[in-house]
Amino acid sequence: RHDRNNTSVTVFEQEHFQGKCKEFTSECCNIHDCSLDNIRSIRVESGAWVGFEHHDFQGQQFILERGEYPNWEACSGSLSYHIERFMSLRPIHCASHNNSRMKIFEKENFIGRSTELCDDYPSLVAMGWIKPEVGSMHVQCGAFVCYEYPGYRGQQYIMESERHSGDYQHWKTWGSHCQTPKIQSIRRIRH
Amino acid sequence: RHDRNNTSVTVFEQEHFQGKCKEFTSECCNIHDCSLDNIRSIRVESGAWVGFEHHDFQGQQFILERGEYPNWEACSGSLSYHIERFMSLRPIHCASHNNSRMKIFEKENFIGRSTELCDDYPSLVAMGWIKPEVGSMHVQCGAFVCYEYPGYRGQQYIMESERHSGDYQHWKTWGSHCQTPKIQSIRRIRH
Repeated sequence: RHDRNNTSVTVFEQEHFQGKCKEFTSECCNIHDCSLDNIRSIRVESGAWVGFEHHDFQGQQFILERGEYPNWEACSGSLSYHIERFMSLRPIHCASHNNSRMKIFEKENFIGRSTELCDDYPSLVAMGWIKPEVGSMHVQCGAFVCYEYPGYRGQQYIMESERHSGDYQHWKTWGSHCQTPKIQSIRRIRH
Repeated sequence: RHDRNNTSVTVFEQEHFQGKCKEFTSECCNIHDCSLDNIRSIRVESGAWVGFEHHDFQGQQFILERGEYPNWEACSGSLSYHIERFMSLRPIHCASHNNSRMKIFEKENFIGRSTELCDDYPSLVAMGWIKPEVGSMHVQCGAFVCYEYPGYRGQQYIMESERHSGDYQHWKTWGSHCQTPKIQSIRRIRH
């Protein structure tokens, strides 16, 4: 069902794919344990990955899909506070693209108004959602990336059906860096 | 065919929707001529808009879809060089979402390998494109936003069927700020 075997990423200690490099095909919980000082550029060969600010998959999250990320800004996108490194990374468990499905709720603990999502939404309010926030979420199938601002900008939160049983009942469970329930765009993550 | 009449954006001189504000329902080629000193936050009520770094729709481009942009980082996304203002903005002419269609070419002047796009693509190489660059583009219907990096990050270029007859034959025609043919993700712009 899931494409776990075909994931590969090469990371480089310097920008533009220079310097010491290392290939990963599964998770790395601390780059220092892999004798890397830093990650400054990344080439994702297959699968979808998520990079984390701190070791053990803590701190800000950054979706990494197939392609080339020649410098830090290419990796990170826009941020509320700036960091300059990844300390851990892991593959994302995706479902077949067309099967991805999640539900968002107005309030914490899966209560209040709700909507089912099975597409990409650069603006949640444009598709009828009531406010620039989400109270809780349940991922039924696949994986999604949720963003603080419209147009896939700002803080990113990776949500997977295979983690926490797909349940994200409060913004404090979205990631250790999350400080508000602000979410304004959501999209599926593909293989 | 196009939804030109239903576009509205409110801009604010200070962050978090504070200070002097002004509503626009059509293009503004220089905010100083509208007695605004600055734009620090934006609320898009309807339609899709593009903000520009310089007056007369020059410089870096930023797609603005329905929702709230409380500060500069929410508006801008990630950038190769940092700017801190919009000087002009205008609505984008979108087609019905499902009719949006464009063609990308390997080389300048619409030659080399080509692919037709009618969906959203967070990674062009993941869907079979050959390299992290595009030589030229033709937008047959609707409007798209093209990004320098995968996952809708980096420099943005707004491409519309209603401008330049939809023809973008060289990266120099993608925008006055464009310096390379690097494009790694593309998506449709909705009403």
